[in-house]
Amino acid sequence: MAINVIIAGPRGRMGTEAVEMVTNEPNLQLVACIDRKNDKEKMREYPTLSRLKIPVFEDPEECFHTVQADVFIDLTVPEACFDHATIAIQRHIRTVIGTSGLTNSQIEELSAISKENQTGCIIAPNFAIGAVLMMQFSKMAARYFPDVEIIEKHHDQKLDAPSGTAVKTVDLIKQTRLPKTQGHPNEEEIIPGARGAVDDGIRVHSVRLPGLVAHQEVIFGGSGQTLSIKHDSIDRKSFMSGVKFAVENVIDLNELVYGLENILDK
Amino acid sequence: MAINVIIAGPRGRMGTEAVEMVTNEPNLQLVACIDRKNDKEKMREYPTLSRLKIPVFEDPEECFHTVQADVFIDLTVPEACFDHATIAIQRHIRTVIGTSGLTNSQIEELSAISKENQTGCIIAPNFAIGAVLMMQFSKMAARYFPDVEIIEKHHDQKLDAPSGTAVKTVDLIKQTRLPKTQGHPNEEEIIPGARGAVDDGIRVHSVRLPGLVAHQEVIFGGSGQTLSIKHDSIDRKSFMSGVKFAVENVIDLNELVYGLENILDK
Amino acid sequence: MAINVIIAGPRGRMGTEAVEMVTNEPNLQLVACIDRKNDKEKMREYPTLSRLKIPVFEDPEECFHTVQADVFIDLTVPEACFDHATIAIQRHIRTVIGTSGLTNSQIEELSAISKENQTGCIIAPNFAIGAVLMMQFSKMAARYFPDVEIIEKHHDQKLDAPSGTAVKTVDLIKQTRLPKTQGHPNEEEIIPGARGAVDDGIRVHSVRLPGLVAHQEVIFGGSGQTLSIKHDSIDRKSFMSGVKFAVENVIDLNELVYGLENILDK
Amino acid sequence: MAINVIIAGPRGRMGTEAVEMVTNEPNLQLVACIDRKNDKEKMREYPTLSRLKIPVFEDPEECFHTVQADVFIDLTVPEACFDHATIAIQRHIRTVIGTSGLTNSQIEELSAISKENQTGCIIAPNFAIGAVLMMQFSKMAARYFPDVEIIEKHHDQKLDAPSGTAVKTVDLIKQTRLPKTQGHPNEEEIIPGARGAVDDGIRVHSVRLPGLVAHQEVIFGGSGQTLSIKHDSIDRKSFMSGVKFAVENVIDLNELVYGLENILDK
Repeated sequence: MAINVIIAGPRGRMGTEAVEMVTNEPNLQLVACIDRKNDKEKMREYPTLSRLKIPVFEDPEECFHTVQADVFIDLTVPEACFDHATIAIQRHIRTVIGTSGLTNSQIEELSAISKENQTGCIIAPNFAIGAVLMMQFSKMAARYFPDVEIIEKHHDQKLDAPSGTAVKTVDLIKQTRLPKTQGHPNEEEIIPGARGAVDDGIRVHSVRLPGLVAHQEVIFGGSGQTLSIKHDSIDRKSFMSGVKFAVENVIDLNELVYGLENILDK
Repeated sequence: MAINVIIAGPRGRMGTEAVEMVTNEPNLQLVACIDRKNDKEKMREYPTLSRLKIPVFEDPEECFHTVQADVFIDLTVPEACFDHATIAIQRHIRTVIGTSGLTNSQIEELSAISKENQTGCIIAPNFAIGAVLMMQFSKMAARYFPDVEIIEKHHDQKLDAPSGTAVKTVDLIKQTRLPKTQGHPNEEEIIPGARGAVDDGIRVHSVRLPGLVAHQEVIFGGSGQTLSIKHDSIDRKSFMSGVKFAVENVIDLNELVYGLENILDK
Repeated sequence: MAINVIIAGPRGRMGTEAVEMVTNEPNLQLVACIDRKNDKEKMREYPTLSRLKIPVFEDPEECFHTVQADVFIDLTVPEACFDHATIAIQRHIRTVIGTSGLTNSQIEELSAISKENQTGCIIAPNFAIGAVLMMQFSKMAARYFPDVEIIEKHHDQKLDAPSGTAVKTVDLIKQTRLPKTQGHPNEEEIIPGARGAVDDGIRVHSVRLPGLVAHQEVIFGGSGQTLSIKHDSIDRKSFMSGVKFAVENVIDLNELVYGLENILDK
Repeated sequence: MAINVIIAGPRGRMGTEAVEMVTNEPNLQLVACIDRKNDKEKMREYPTLSRLKIPVFEDPEECFHTVQADVFIDLTVPEACFDHATIAIQRHIRTVIGTSGLTNSQIEELSAISKENQTGCIIAPNFAIGAVLMMQFSKMAARYFPDVEIIEKHHDQKLDAPSGTAVKTVDLIKQTRLPKTQGHPNEEEIIPGARGAVDDGIRVHSVRLPGLVAHQEVIFGGSGQTLSIKHDSIDRKSFMSGVKFAVENVIDLNELVYGLENILDK
């Protein structure tokens, strides 16, 4: 039997993809959308939405009251998201949150509501399942290979370097890696910056070029061998694999889980 | 306190590296070698061995009787290996077997002896820890990505294609991957072989070129993303990371374990 | 001073990108389009086209007669293309043809018309300049490295394997490579197809996975070293670099040139 | 007919490989060696040399006087090299110099002697032909792709970053690349060094890990595409392809050429 799904934020960049994904997956069924600015004209610009003929609600309360759903997916903005999720969980609708930017106290509050209502919730700001696996594998490999460097590559419109994913990967690696000063002690940068950014002795290199989208390679080195774990994302669609995975897994949860990595292998 | 180690087969290709590794690791101590053809002249050709001034025995019984050791490493041939390991385990010396080619019944017998004597034994024919991790990660990733292809690259003197590691990787992937017919149903090979070897719907491609050593990449594809896990081995030294890992872990084992993958994360 | 450009086929997949590119390049100026089915309603669906307010002609004769242009770009179908190009060149408008499928005799005829009218024409069915360079570099490298294999990777909706680009690359490599039987003479495929497709002793491997777009790597191997040339195309936009390059170079041509590779380094 | 070759420095790291290569190539014939410290005992340690039974001279004059040769290969140290090459060229023996560290004035002097004696000489400090091609292709590609970054990877015992090859590649790229400020103007390094070393707006990233040898990738980015040129060297043997190429080409030279790149495609 299909899982009935409500999506909030169906016209956003992530929401558009989510609508597409849910309507294409045979075991998922889109039953309603929540759209704060439910302008009929705007909807018409979104072919999938206008073709679907599913009810679109401006008021979340009304939506959850009117339509029977198994899972609620929020892809909006932090403030709206917190409200939506609170209502959904209180109505025992399991919730998947892809919106990023919730505060720690909001997350704690949702966790409490989730527990109280015995209704699962998954918060996963980075939904690309390949990226989640890359990070988990890196954490596991670092236990055996203390020498590691990261190369992340993005399009040349990206402002920050290193990327958030690279920083998070370093944090995960630190949890298992034996402290080590990598490289030769007398190593010298003939041109400053050649050896990249350093975080806890781990080097991170950020490449920015047109023609790239979002790529990261974590390279572990040992005597006579290297082990590399690489994720290439060329399309926002990649995030949908994680959304789908979360929807299918939240069904069996009775509490809040932060991060897809914590439900892997479930 | 250092772990005292005996090595059988110190003049072989793997044995030479193992002698080198054990003598260089601060927490390991080489205390004796077993060499069936203990020709003093031959030993002189091996600088490390001749410099070490450690006893070399032709008779394993005599060796294990004379020298106190924590771990015995066998890198010989199947027949000798089985004898050595039996004696070692019966004397409660924990054993690491890198020799390949033991029969299933020999392995079962060693397993029984190991249990009976409450003395750990690790059998791991492919000791490169990076390769072991690559295979484990592939097995884990296949759960989320049913679309996968393998490219393995070796020097052009290799006779068999695909490599044993590629075949083993496919076997591991099959354990977790949902059955799937990959590629387009109407896909056509304009030149036969273009789409590689097929095993259970998984494609394997074997590249053979001078300048390569031993490399394998497992590529998982999903909507908008790919995840790649790659192991490059350029030197037999790479196997020593696995030997070292096995030695350090066999200490805490009281039974036989087949495959390094089963003691990962221990 | 800007180069004035007419585009035929502005609503096609390539045409849409070409309109976008020409209107964004400061040294190019879109002055008209030729569209056989110039339905005003259809045009409205193409935001760039409808915003531009440039004349759109159904009749190529009328277009070339009415509008003053330096370069004509054809991105239509073979039959229309041949007509368009003939008229354009006879009117001394230099012509860039991205349409594939012209017959040899059509190409010869256009070549004659081009010479007669002292008006340059470039035919280049694969416009991605990176792909053109990859093929040229491969041809050059093969002179020094007779051992070479090709790995091409595409999305899993592609029907043919190997790709047309791979086949063309092999053809170019053959022109410079010393004949050589690669691999070990006793090499054996344990699973058929492992060693890929063979063309003149060169192995080609075709990977098909979701998450890929269009990628090719040419790997040359020699004693102790490999040289790899890789092209990754993730967007049809990549073809526009070649169109732009052709437009800028056709200006100085007085005859027909087939293939961008023949005007490289000009 | 085979080319007769004299090698100076046969016991050095490069020399050992050169002796091996020359004796294995059917069209080359090793006829003598020059070894300043021609200690018979030392020679015995080099199996190939002691087996060959070719004359070894301490005095270069005597060597060139006694033995008839077509090509002289010098793999020694700058001072000795300059002397050897001067004598060889004056005796009309074509000369290949792999020794690095000759001063500019020494090179100019050899160039004059070479011209005067109408005897070719090739000086090529980096003999790996794959590396030479990588640099040439990069120079050619930069004409079409002003956006470029370099990732070079070496073993973790290397002291300097970036590598000499990376610096030389940047110099070559500068000769053809249109000046461009790459990356987003507001790009920000959250951790210093993330964006690598900068030379003329080109970013260079240096990775240092055990398990690596000598690798470089030059990545060009354009709209929707990237072009990558990669050289992997895992063994000193790789340099011999360049030595062989130089020997075969110096035969036809009557003057001095600096850098293998200048005789490519000859």
